[in-house]
Amino acid sequence: MRNEYFLRKAEELKPALFREEIVLDGEGKPMEDGEEVIYDFGSHYTGYLRIDFGYEGHHPDAPLTFSVQFAEIREELDLDPEEYHGWISRSWIQKETVHLDVVPSVCQLNRRYAFRYVRIRILHASGNYRPVIRKLFLTAVTSADSRNVPAVQFTGDDLVLDRISQRTLRNCMQEVFEDGPKRDRRLWLGDLRLQALANYQTFRNNDLVKRCLYLFAGSTLDEGRLASNIFLEPQVECDDQTMFDYTLFFINTLCDYYRESGDRETLSDLQPVCMRQYELLKNCFDTTGMIDTEKAGRIFADWNFELDKQACGQAVWIYAVRDLIRICRECGEDTTELENDLKMKTAAAMRLYDEKTGMFVSGPEQQISWASQIWMILAEVPDRDLSEKILRRLPEIKDAVQLNSPYAYHHYIQALINTGMKDEAYTAMHEYWGGMAALGADTFWELYNPEQPYVSPYGGLIVNSFCHAWSCTPTYFLRKYYAEKEPDDGGDI
Amino acid sequence: MRNEYFLRKAEELKPALFREEIVLDGEGKPMEDGEEVIYDFGSHYTGYLRIDFGYEGHHPDAPLTFSVQFAEIREELDLDPEEYHGWISRSWIQKETVHLDVVPSVCQLNRRYAFRYVRIRILHASGNYRPVIRKLFLTAVTSADSRNVPAVQFTGDDLVLDRISQRTLRNCMQEVFEDGPKRDRRLWLGDLRLQALANYQTFRNNDLVKRCLYLFAGSTLDEGRLASNIFLEPQVECDDQTMFDYTLFFINTLCDYYRESGDRETLSDLQPVCMRQYELLKNCFDTTGMIDTEKAGRIFADWNFELDKQACGQAVWIYAVRDLIRICRECGEDTTELENDLKMKTAAAMRLYDEKTGMFVSGPEQQISWASQIWMILAEVPDRDLSEKILRRLPEIKDAVQLNSPYAYHHYIQALINTGMKDEAYTAMHEYWGGMAALGADTFWELYNPEQPYVSPYGGLIVNSFCHAWSCTPTYFLRKYYAEKEPDDGGDI
Repeated sequence: MRNEYFLRKAEELKPALFREEIVLDGEGKPMEDGEEVIYDFGSHYTGYLRIDFGYEGHHPDAPLTFSVQFAEIREELDLDPEEYHGWISRSWIQKETVHLDVVPSVCQLNRRYAFRYVRIRILHASGNYRPVIRKLFLTAVTSADSRNVPAVQFTGDDLVLDRISQRTLRNCMQEVFEDGPKRDRRLWLGDLRLQALANYQTFRNNDLVKRCLYLFAGSTLDEGRLASNIFLEPQVECDDQTMFDYTLFFINTLCDYYRESGDRETLSDLQPVCMRQYELLKNCFDTTGMIDTEKAGRIFADWNFELDKQACGQAVWIYAVRDLIRICRECGEDTTELENDLKMKTAAAMRLYDEKTGMFVSGPEQQISWASQIWMILAEVPDRDLSEKILRRLPEIKDAVQLNSPYAYHHYIQALINTGMKDEAYTAMHEYWGGMAALGADTFWELYNPEQPYVSPYGGLIVNSFCHAWSCTPTYFLRKYYAEKEPDDGGDI
Repeated sequence: MRNEYFLRKAEELKPALFREEIVLDGEGKPMEDGEEVIYDFGSHYTGYLRIDFGYEGHHPDAPLTFSVQFAEIREELDLDPEEYHGWISRSWIQKETVHLDVVPSVCQLNRRYAFRYVRIRILHASGNYRPVIRKLFLTAVTSADSRNVPAVQFTGDDLVLDRISQRTLRNCMQEVFEDGPKRDRRLWLGDLRLQALANYQTFRNNDLVKRCLYLFAGSTLDEGRLASNIFLEPQVECDDQTMFDYTLFFINTLCDYYRESGDRETLSDLQPVCMRQYELLKNCFDTTGMIDTEKAGRIFADWNFELDKQACGQAVWIYAVRDLIRICRECGEDTTELENDLKMKTAAAMRLYDEKTGMFVSGPEQQISWASQIWMILAEVPDRDLSEKILRRLPEIKDAVQLNSPYAYHHYIQALINTGMKDEAYTAMHEYWGGMAALGADTFWELYNPEQPYVSPYGGLIVNSFCHAWSCTPTYFLRKYYAEKEPDDGGDI
């Protein structure tokens, strides 16, 4: 389903990209067939590469064939793309073989890449000449305007995390908030929500959030169901994949946007879209208000196939409907039904609380997981005391299903903060994201497990994304909760 | 050395290219990773390819990686590019691996290719979708205007040779007369001379010949020596490679051009360039007027390392200086010195005639070759009777070094015609070029040996050029010497 009015609004908000030129000197020496050089741009960028090839010897009489491989982290270059046999497409690997017809000339590679490192390998020149790499030109692109970032005096590790977060967000901010500029380069609702939060504290490009909200509203599945992600090319088209939690996050993202922007027109436009999701998801619950996970379909919650997602699903619904009530009130709508429903679902959620273990359990196996506790706390199902008790006991439960992704860690930090455990949140944030920083990360990663830093759910590190939006929130936490001078949040609703 | 006046003239004559669109339907069925299709455009073209990819399944969520290999003849596709280890660059092999970021979309390949066949192989899509090839669009380019070709009623094999010749020439006619649109895609003097002759009988693009003459004159080696070939990109620059015979052919090409066009301005501009070559090559002869092959440097004559080129060199000089005298006379210059020199060199040439065998011999080994006889005859060193005697006896001399290339065969046909053996010329032409036609050639090849049709001097057929300018002259012979109504040659000089 396409809503042309919404899509036109989204199109009008398409940002111009800022461009930054970074020039590296080449080796400047003649290269033989088979020879290679690795260039380090010093940090991570999203952008385009041009390579200025000269030559030594006679005038080149045959094209130059070379390969160029891009890497976000140095370790990627040690992996052979041909050796990747995982379940996602090898087409994500950023490696090209290029025939350059004219030498000397500047070879413009047409695709956009996400990288810090570039390996150029000469495959075939001719007996007449040896190619020389004279210069490399990187045109970095982003829709983030660094001049908008409020000045905050961070020092030490705070400064490190703030900078890496901002770089992560900046390199994901293109014509939409992309999840990762290497992979999937796409607008996902779950990532958008976190990016928007970090954006409000930094680049403050509210229009880009607005554009993304209209994109989701402008291309929906049958009956108006919001997709989990949107394709931009060749034209705006939602994926046919839905996720229960991602659908609901549209509500939170709109509510956050309105809180930041005060943009009533957008709120009015999109409030019916939120209500539509509420209506469509009604049939995912039984008569007692408990989620039916078969009917709910896929719930993301974390990159974890082991995790039972019943409790997370129940909690995310509550978390979203709390914001839906705020939105509807602001639009002057009657919220009685919503409030009654919220009460019933909250009561059902409390039935998942197990007195014996003092934990929320999930699914037929009564699984205890970090994610379930965190989402119940974010949804304010347990009161503050119980929340604190849960969070303090959680590390002691050895067989609790752990968190896997920075996305899930974000919610852990938020849950600690919401429960008043700001010091613990600060420590946990520094331990987790600081672990990536200690490994030399220029941008925060899609996946990070402190015990296995280079793990991949895709069957190969080479397809992991090392600049991933959902990992960018330390800047949000630091600036919102820990900065000397707290930035203005705008009015509450 | 650059002559900016000449180069400006050449630049002003740069032709606009004619474009023809050829559309093929794709298979239209979803393809798995590893699956491939071969498309046949029905004939040979020089141009650009666009591939319209659709998909079946879910919206593509990852780039499409595919390879595309272009082939002038079907046999090329049976050869693995990785298996080529010959002495010229593998970079000539027309094969690309492409990552297409947007599916569905029309993928424009930026390089120009020479091909009839295209093999597309799907390397990596994703689990979400299977690509579908919907259409292929070929934009064929040439600077040959088919509307200019004089109508001549050929039938049967004549018609076949005429058409294949014209297609060969047409696909080599780009911004200059290229030797081959697959390889080397470059302006060579030896090829230019023959292309110009075929062009005058067909597409009659005299300006393109003029442009090429000015290009050679505009970029020369030290002291004004003409190079054997010119690079056009990134800027006009002559190769540092010279060939004795190719240098001299500038004179014949200019003379032919003037004969066709009557363009006195160009003749006056370039007559000094011709004289300069004459002066520069003086030191390649001993005091008796015999060529010193060490001083002459490389003489091409044929694609044949076995061939001793002394006799050919001596003869080509005479052949060129005959035209130089015509040019100088037309410019009102005194030609006494040239005529005396011509007499001396012709007398020296006759010293290479061996009474015992009735053949011209070449080099310290007194080698007898077809090429030596042909060039002596074209240079009018033997009189007509002796020429005929030589040409009739030649096939009986079993150990005479044979002809290897269509380039050398052209001169054999011309020698037969000049000697009045028109029927023999006609038969030989049909046997040789007809042999390629019988093998299904759409365009005539760089190399053809009737006994080993698929031979390569490069260590692999995959880098041979199968649309090669120097092979395009049957149309010249047919139209000039065998057509019912002979086209007007313009005045003689």
